[in-house]
Amino acid sequence: MATIRIPHPVPSPVEDAQALMKACKGWGTDEKGVIEVIAYRDATQRKLIREAYEELFNENLIKRLESELSGDFEKAVYRWMFDPAEREAIIANVAIKDNDYRVIIETACINSAKELLVVKQTYHAINKHSLEEDVASHITGDFRKLLVALVSTYRYDGDEVNIKLAQSEAKVLHDAIKEKIYNHEEIIRILSTRSKAQLNATFNQYKDEYGASITKDLSGEGSNEFASALRVVVRCIISPKKYFEKLLRSATSNRGNEDALTRVIVTRAEKDLSEIKELYEKRTNMSLDQAISKETSGDYKKFLLALLGN
Amino acid sequence: MATIRIPHPVPSPVEDAQALMKACKGWGTDEKGVIEVIAYRDATQRKLIREAYEELFNENLIKRLESELSGDFEKAVYRWMFDPAEREAIIANVAIKDNDYRVIIETACINSAKELLVVKQTYHAINKHSLEEDVASHITGDFRKLLVALVSTYRYDGDEVNIKLAQSEAKVLHDAIKEKIYNHEEIIRILSTRSKAQLNATFNQYKDEYGASITKDLSGEGSNEFASALRVVVRCIISPKKYFEKLLRSATSNRGNEDALTRVIVTRAEKDLSEIKELYEKRTNMSLDQAISKETSGDYKKFLLALLGN
Repeated sequence: MATIRIPHPVPSPVEDAQALMKACKGWGTDEKGVIEVIAYRDATQRKLIREAYEELFNENLIKRLESELSGDFEKAVYRWMFDPAEREAIIANVAIKDNDYRVIIETACINSAKELLVVKQTYHAINKHSLEEDVASHITGDFRKLLVALVSTYRYDGDEVNIKLAQSEAKVLHDAIKEKIYNHEEIIRILSTRSKAQLNATFNQYKDEYGASITKDLSGEGSNEFASALRVVVRCIISPKKYFEKLLRSATSNRGNEDALTRVIVTRAEKDLSEIKELYEKRTNMSLDQAISKETSGDYKKFLLALLGN
Repeated sequence: MATIRIPHPVPSPVEDAQALMKACKGWGTDEKGVIEVIAYRDATQRKLIREAYEELFNENLIKRLESELSGDFEKAVYRWMFDPAEREAIIANVAIKDNDYRVIIETACINSAKELLVVKQTYHAINKHSLEEDVASHITGDFRKLLVALVSTYRYDGDEVNIKLAQSEAKVLHDAIKEKIYNHEEIIRILSTRSKAQLNATFNQYKDEYGASITKDLSGEGSNEFASALRVVVRCIISPKKYFEKLLRSATSNRGNEDALTRVIVTRAEKDLSEIKELYEKRTNMSLDQAISKETSGDYKKFLLALLGN
């Protein structure tokens, strides 16, 4: 479930566009006025506001907000204002340039085949390149093999599971991991081509047959950065919600990570952030709202809390 | 342009279904009666006939035709009766089982990104597996690397070309081919991820810079089966029509190859077989109709000639 709250009745896109123009006009920006509009509208409503703003003021709303705001708040608003597929295409493009394998894996493995396709089509429209093409030409070595395979694949999304295949492929995975050949062709083949239902069956067989979960074995002694990437793949396929909960935990810890915090809140606020929040509270005995209040400040904090339903 | 000819006015799907039932009923089959209906209807009309037949006689028309007909004629009718995307999904599935890399490359490289996507979605619906998954688990070694990459990719299909990139990647291709490292990662990356417009620019740069075409260099001394596969990729990307023309020439030569002959006629009859025919006649000084009359016989011959517009 989503966490954002939308007022009833909701103002018209034209009224919202006018309110945003008012908040941006003159000396200084009324950040609170910006948050009061955009944090309480869903993707479709925000799109209509962007269109109304463009028509009324002959100006791109996102660019205007970018120039008015700054820091983590600006980044969060910038991400939030795009359509979900545009946002993911932009996040993926930045991740490719930053060599941030984790985010590329999220895009490839958390989206369904159809969602990933829409992200890829949007990526084409924005960048005049394909996602796989840019991953392939910016990333090198084993990471390239893994990431290109993951972003390219169009997985079957049915529920059918072949248990014999799950058993035999659990063994293939286990044998390679035991030998610490994390970059084994067969690991990449299985993780990048099988359906998510089939992979979940394979991971269950792995645990049943060999005693430890595949994620645990991947973080065992002798594990390396590539094994960590494989763990991200497995965790994104097993449970995106748990994956995001853990990412939030690390992002709100002392080390902090505003990029990840913004990414999770902004991309999940209209989807399943409510369940992610519950998982977080169970694990930490602290609500996500409290943690964010403690770790962030200013308009950035106000904006995230608004997206969390405050 | 298509070669098939559709009568005006065209009978209704119900009339066609009844005519087909009449041709199949009783002792023996009236093959001529079958050809007279199905060879002169387009994909949409054939679909409506299948639906009308199912409704009228509570029987699957394609299965009935399969049981009534035999040999190359049966195979050709079977291929023809499906929707284009179903047909390609079926052809690809057979090719995977037969390890027929040429057909898999055709599917991956001749279709546009959007067409390939529809074939993949149809493949899911029929096989409860993804195309990339089946290629990856049935094919091995370097061929797997190439074919999985080709069937997975969702290429950008815009016309934009980066000439500097074309120059640098022409050099990458040339260096690897000169060293006879045909399975070089960079060759597979470039051929499987770049847009067709970009690849055509790269192949032109290759010829301009190094004197010979990439296809010529790929068939030079020391060339192997994998280099032949790369040539198929390049030729399918440069010109599907010329590729099919050459395939028809080889299929109608003394060696013969009914599978390829059927595949080209059936898959292109509603698309560009007219231009392919012209190219064939220019190269051989013999019309494709004459060549097929000479090399085939019986109902198979009658059916192919009907699809060619006779």
